[in-house]
Amino acid sequence: MKKSDMETYRKTALKYFDKAGIVLTDAEKKAIEVTDYDLDAFEDIGLFLLTYFNTGRSSARELVLLPGQACPEHYHPPFEDDTGSNPGKEETFRCRYGSVYLYVDGEPTPDPACRPPDLLPEHFQVAHEVELLPGAQYTINPGTKHWFRAGPEGAIVSEFSTRIKDEADVFTDPALTRFATLDED
Amino acid sequence: MKKSDMETYRKTALKYFDKAGIVLTDAEKKAIEVTDYDLDAFEDIGLFLLTYFNTGRSSARELVLLPGQACPEHYHPPFEDDTGSNPGKEETFRCRYGSVYLYVDGEPTPDPACRPPDLLPEHFQVAHEVELLPGAQYTINPGTKHWFRAGPEGAIVSEFSTRIKDEADVFTDPALTRFATLDED
Repeated sequence: MKKSDMETYRKTALKYFDKAGIVLTDAEKKAIEVTDYDLDAFEDIGLFLLTYFNTGRSSARELVLLPGQACPEHYHPPFEDDTGSNPGKEETFRCRYGSVYLYVDGEPTPDPACRPPDLLPEHFQVAHEVELLPGAQYTINPGTKHWFRAGPEGAIVSEFSTRIKDEADVFTDPALTRFATLDED
Repeated sequence: MKKSDMETYRKTALKYFDKAGIVLTDAEKKAIEVTDYDLDAFEDIGLFLLTYFNTGRSSARELVLLPGQACPEHYHPPFEDDTGSNPGKEETFRCRYGSVYLYVDGEPTPDPACRPPDLLPEHFQVAHEVELLPGAQYTINPGTKHWFRAGPEGAIVSEFSTRIKDEADVFTDPALTRFATLDED
């Protein structure tokens, strides 16, 4: 992604925070992460992340998705850290604005609200659907494969979790990276 | 506190959630806890709590305070649970609406924004002030004594934490209880 595109998208994310009534500091506004997983198709497969804090024990962030935007399938594996063995990140999603459809390991839902994006359907395999409208929440245990896609209004989702260690995330497509390259204009 | 008073206060809390744009389910609206710590002075010393979830590893809730309302001094001690030794609850407060003044162990702030409530000042001893306006946050480590009081508009504060175990909380006044008695009308 080009640096100038990232700045433009970041301004779009701020509009979602405004709609949801979520107040950010100026430093946070500048720290919103914009990732396209190096797939160069941000509006189809991509995510905004704003991490509020991440201690060794707990963390919280907000996720923003554009209408129909999808986060590719991945899970959170166990890892070692300075406190010993960590069973992996446990995260709870709570929808604050719009709608998001979460797909997790389990019995496939017969008539799901979303399909995987046409681009790269191999990134999206698990098919048990959880609908998250504002006020609804769902806890994803470590090791559970999941992906999610926003409904037509986009979405803001609060993520409450144990320690974040995004660099440990295991994507279904091993070529994919959470930390996208930023190109100069 | 009388049951009818609790119901009235709960309706007041809902107005704060509306102002902050926080969407709750109908079940959550009915589950808002109203505690006066059995001090019978709820508008001075009391707290609304809505716990979203509490697993063995992470939890999140919203706190609501009326204008000038204070939560009495306490800390979160270590405890044993089914996973072994827990060093105690680590919690991060993030102000969403209004203002809250947090007082923690440390160098007393010379000209603090709040004083302890006139009632029972012995419940409020630590005096290092942290001002939390919307978007500001602060992490309280286990074992750190703290109390807090809302500014003139009241406050909504998100609490992101490790496992909640309120029954383990140690109050500066040992007679005080987090789980207030509810009297029939």
